[in-house]
Amino acid sequence: MNVSQMKAAVLDKPLSIEVKEVKMPEPKRDEALIKVACIGVCGSDVHYYEHGKIGRYEVKKPIILGHELAGEVVKIGEDVTNVSVGERVAVEPGVTCGKCSYCKSGRYNLCPDVVFMATPPVDGAWADYVSVRSDFLFKLPDSMSYEEGALLEPLSVGFHAMKRGKVGPADRLFITGLGPIGLLTIQAAKMFGVTEIYTSDVVPFRRELALEMGATNVIDPTIEDVNDRLQELTNGKGIDVLIETSGNQHAIGAAVKQVNRGGRLVLVGLPVQSEIPIDIAHLIDAEIDVYGVFRYANTYPAVIQALSHCNLNIEKVITDSFKLDEIKEAVETARTEKDKSIKIMIYPNSKD
Amino acid sequence: MNVSQMKAAVLDKPLSIEVKEVKMPEPKRDEALIKVACIGVCGSDVHYYEHGKIGRYEVKKPIILGHELAGEVVKIGEDVTNVSVGERVAVEPGVTCGKCSYCKSGRYNLCPDVVFMATPPVDGAWADYVSVRSDFLFKLPDSMSYEEGALLEPLSVGFHAMKRGKVGPADRLFITGLGPIGLLTIQAAKMFGVTEIYTSDVVPFRRELALEMGATNVIDPTIEDVNDRLQELTNGKGIDVLIETSGNQHAIGAAVKQVNRGGRLVLVGLPVQSEIPIDIAHLIDAEIDVYGVFRYANTYPAVIQALSHCNLNIEKVITDSFKLDEIKEAVETARTEKDKSIKIMIYPNSKD
Amino acid sequence: MNVSQMKAAVLDKPLSIEVKEVKMPEPKRDEALIKVACIGVCGSDVHYYEHGKIGRYEVKKPIILGHELAGEVVKIGEDVTNVSVGERVAVEPGVTCGKCSYCKSGRYNLCPDVVFMATPPVDGAWADYVSVRSDFLFKLPDSMSYEEGALLEPLSVGFHAMKRGKVGPADRLFITGLGPIGLLTIQAAKMFGVTEIYTSDVVPFRRELALEMGATNVIDPTIEDVNDRLQELTNGKGIDVLIETSGNQHAIGAAVKQVNRGGRLVLVGLPVQSEIPIDIAHLIDAEIDVYGVFRYANTYPAVIQALSHCNLNIEKVITDSFKLDEIKEAVETARTEKDKSIKIMIYPNSKD
Amino acid sequence: MNVSQMKAAVLDKPLSIEVKEVKMPEPKRDEALIKVACIGVCGSDVHYYEHGKIGRYEVKKPIILGHELAGEVVKIGEDVTNVSVGERVAVEPGVTCGKCSYCKSGRYNLCPDVVFMATPPVDGAWADYVSVRSDFLFKLPDSMSYEEGALLEPLSVGFHAMKRGKVGPADRLFITGLGPIGLLTIQAAKMFGVTEIYTSDVVPFRRELALEMGATNVIDPTIEDVNDRLQELTNGKGIDVLIETSGNQHAIGAAVKQVNRGGRLVLVGLPVQSEIPIDIAHLIDAEIDVYGVFRYANTYPAVIQALSHCNLNIEKVITDSFKLDEIKEAVETARTEKDKSIKIMIYPNSKD
Repeated sequence: MNVSQMKAAVLDKPLSIEVKEVKMPEPKRDEALIKVACIGVCGSDVHYYEHGKIGRYEVKKPIILGHELAGEVVKIGEDVTNVSVGERVAVEPGVTCGKCSYCKSGRYNLCPDVVFMATPPVDGAWADYVSVRSDFLFKLPDSMSYEEGALLEPLSVGFHAMKRGKVGPADRLFITGLGPIGLLTIQAAKMFGVTEIYTSDVVPFRRELALEMGATNVIDPTIEDVNDRLQELTNGKGIDVLIETSGNQHAIGAAVKQVNRGGRLVLVGLPVQSEIPIDIAHLIDAEIDVYGVFRYANTYPAVIQALSHCNLNIEKVITDSFKLDEIKEAVETARTEKDKSIKIMIYPNSKD
Repeated sequence: MNVSQMKAAVLDKPLSIEVKEVKMPEPKRDEALIKVACIGVCGSDVHYYEHGKIGRYEVKKPIILGHELAGEVVKIGEDVTNVSVGERVAVEPGVTCGKCSYCKSGRYNLCPDVVFMATPPVDGAWADYVSVRSDFLFKLPDSMSYEEGALLEPLSVGFHAMKRGKVGPADRLFITGLGPIGLLTIQAAKMFGVTEIYTSDVVPFRRELALEMGATNVIDPTIEDVNDRLQELTNGKGIDVLIETSGNQHAIGAAVKQVNRGGRLVLVGLPVQSEIPIDIAHLIDAEIDVYGVFRYANTYPAVIQALSHCNLNIEKVITDSFKLDEIKEAVETARTEKDKSIKIMIYPNSKD
Repeated sequence: MNVSQMKAAVLDKPLSIEVKEVKMPEPKRDEALIKVACIGVCGSDVHYYEHGKIGRYEVKKPIILGHELAGEVVKIGEDVTNVSVGERVAVEPGVTCGKCSYCKSGRYNLCPDVVFMATPPVDGAWADYVSVRSDFLFKLPDSMSYEEGALLEPLSVGFHAMKRGKVGPADRLFITGLGPIGLLTIQAAKMFGVTEIYTSDVVPFRRELALEMGATNVIDPTIEDVNDRLQELTNGKGIDVLIETSGNQHAIGAAVKQVNRGGRLVLVGLPVQSEIPIDIAHLIDAEIDVYGVFRYANTYPAVIQALSHCNLNIEKVITDSFKLDEIKEAVETARTEKDKSIKIMIYPNSKD
Repeated sequence: MNVSQMKAAVLDKPLSIEVKEVKMPEPKRDEALIKVACIGVCGSDVHYYEHGKIGRYEVKKPIILGHELAGEVVKIGEDVTNVSVGERVAVEPGVTCGKCSYCKSGRYNLCPDVVFMATPPVDGAWADYVSVRSDFLFKLPDSMSYEEGALLEPLSVGFHAMKRGKVGPADRLFITGLGPIGLLTIQAAKMFGVTEIYTSDVVPFRRELALEMGATNVIDPTIEDVNDRLQELTNGKGIDVLIETSGNQHAIGAAVKQVNRGGRLVLVGLPVQSEIPIDIAHLIDAEIDVYGVFRYANTYPAVIQALSHCNLNIEKVITDSFKLDEIKEAVETARTEKDKSIKIMIYPNSKD
């Protein structure tokens, strides 16, 4: 392969994805070139693969997907000082402007000019290499694997949800939905010292994994009365904070009645319905807080620090691994095996 | 009248209210007897009068309504030290337990054992006298009228909404609904230094009063496109915090789309519908906060201090006055004259 | 012993303490009588024993000391509903008024009318029995020992320090002073998910115990340069929050320079000097927060919940045990064996 | 004058300042060239003029001072979109990196790589023109003068102090020191709805100006007992928040005892002493918060909004005006006339 070419998985149109040779990116003055070690398949990637769009974002020209990654620094621009060639790094995939009022006040996840990987028309990193502004690269300690580095992205969503919900060690937590985000939110809750973490999902495999990953208990909402069960599990103390990650309209609609008076409701999972009926009178009468969660901000250094000093095992969410050449099989697995598959990891640059 | 008897307006059943002689209350050790100077008619009073119940609260035996009052201390229990006979006081109408976790952590408005005036089966104060635990009595400075003292109750709701919404001087505010609570919320916003206060209501008289009370601008949602108008009024800056006081389901449903990304939505007005469709995907995508507001806590000393040092004129909301003997006319006015009447004040103990 | 008499350790004047028969307390309507199972010796107890006063509090008449206790409910007043005879409880030793602005706003530890055990002239509980208002009694789960119950009091100080300092899982912490409070603050930090907990003390035994109780590292300030060592231990990241528990004037004076820019300094240990030189220019230039800590509020339910679901071992701080009859030996041990003794536990009602 | 030359006041060494022709700056891609309309003399400018250094910052080569300015955009770099040629703007004088953890978390005033005007070796703007990164330029509404625009800088310090001290409308405030910062902090407090603003200074002229600018009362600490007076003025309610702007060591030392239990102390004025004795035991016993204030962050848009909608008159602090050519006289006035002079404004580009 020509040094200025690399392999990348290119999505042309829905259901049409193929590994091609593309131009290798050249890092700008403030960027570093990352050799991708591993990169996850996110639900949004699968959605673009299947439908070609999410809300206002539409795949109008061929795009490289993927935004949950870690890799090795192989080249740096002349202004880069925070990372060096040869270092192992996690990549935060949204590069923000640093100049708008959101960026300046600490909520850069709301920056209107963010350039976020794998959000059309911006390319992601299902590829051998990717170039990233160096302030979004975070060194991995020796004790952390590339897989953990890649999982920092979905874990950050859970960590940000904890911060948004002002979660502390005395809060009784209920996490609805146990896909990758829900499961990693269990681990985020443990980082914040939460000791009572109740969870629910309709899929048995996910509930089992939740228990392995530290859930205090799991509820099957198809056969149990959720409110009754929560009262029983908490000895009548009830739930202080609910983190909704399923995006399911019934789960969202029920959530407001599943927390205590003065409780907090953190909404993470994006529903497909445009509008969902909510019992607003109860929300007011019980003086509940509701917090939307959009991505995350300022999480990477915090999560790396927390992870590198505790014995959580976030890699348990990885159920499948594929080489970049097997990208079609990888996304098809993600699309069709929701009962058995949680997080799928892609390995570009792998020798077979 | 026998010294141990007094006059009170008693509601026997819906639409049946009459002034009767009842037993005069005797203050307990920690209570003071208040001679009621004036007391407002609240929307909840009218609702009990008309329908005999609100949600889970039902008028099952004759009840005295009314909970927005100020008066004179005429007798004190032996343990009372914070007020003296002859002093003018405002009355906070919910007496809390002081011992539960809500009370101890500063959110006593959520106390499950609160005894709140005019909430069945607890009597209120449309009467000559009422006895109240003295820590819920607050001295009025000479500069404040009894009417202002009585209005501290609805004003407290607006003040609490400001605190729940973390409102500061740089926030652009939109208040939907301009009944007594909405109008007094304008004044609460001014207390917090807010300088851009946009408002809306369908009733022309209320919009006019809003302007008189300090609204920056008023919107008629029946003929204007609210979002367009807000963008225009704010030079494209948009709304940071929306305070919903109307309880109208369309206003509540629209609210989430009327604030900026990262904005805050404070829900005060109780809707009659059990469930209202909300665009949850937008709430998540824009990372919005929603805060329910149930009554208030720790507002009386703060509001008295603020009011006594500024030149706000909260009495502008008083549109009608009646003697206690005219109670039927008063509540009928409140019930039927919503386009012309805002806050109706009752004067027990008035000589004619 | 007559049923209305009980044994209690009475301090007459400095250094003069003796177990005597005193009148057994009778619970009021809202109180419960507690048979004391175990009760700690606090530094303040020792200070009253030795000097007869602390600041404005002076032992002017014979007093029973002791305020860190757990026991069994043996009798309840007629209004008590939250605990029953036979239940094991921890006792929060300060009974607050519930009516002042501090109590109502959630900072009841600042209540000017608090009645706090073993603070002259209020008796404590180095006795067979004590009567306590029932809302300050907290049931112990079966998994918690009486010793843990008694230690909730000093642990609460550490837990409150975490809340005052807004400590979260990503904070690098430095705890100065490793007496009972410092050591239990390590455990409080672990409850909040803190993973980097650096500590210092001049006493080798205390540093060893700190490591056993979960400190990431210990520093001997008499032979190490503290700032250099902290930089080294944190790979140059520095300290985000410093919790000062020693009360030592040099430790307090140095603290402001031991945290990062924008860092937080939580002061817990009471110094004996009236004034301590502080580098205020640095405090301003580095925009540091300083938070005083006075006792605690709203910690007992939270700490019981956290402790009962995690594998912390707070009992490690207990180095000595005595019967109530041995009280003189107990306080003398506390007074003279500071290098070997941390927390001394007294067992009233013990059969020998 | 050659188009590429301009006039600037250059400080060579202490007490030696002179207007010279220097190279006119050329805006970079993301900068705008500002024609300076007016620019204040800050205490730090005077200090550099007099002593040649402040703490670690030393004038080692000739420097242009001045950093409180407003002016007209006369040229923009090709990437600039937020301002246009001909617009009137205020200039925030510290350009931050936007990439460090402080910048990303909203505390950009602590950015270690900030480039701050008139802090050696960075040039300021006592000159005809200055080039500034455009995200630190803020359009002035027509209703605001250039003078107000220049005063946004010191006013921002007071506004930031309010945010650091979590000041709200019910707080009783005490501001010590009535130089430019103290006086403008009065106005900042009014923006936050504070109604009781007590102040103190030793200089009669400053106290008079404080009353004109909205102070509720003024105290002369040389003849009055400050604590007694504060108790009297507040009817025994005491002070909730104290903002120290004098930098005087006695004022700083006394401050901790001048606030209520649970009160807040905001330190703004930089003392010259390295260490100041503080009553730490009282700080702990009263559970006081202390907040250092270093410059400000995110204040300009907020203050412009607040100022443009209220009737505060911040220009009252301007006591003297000079042309750039009179710079020596201007700084000498600032240095020697502290009893009569508050804020001195310089007018480059002025025609005489």
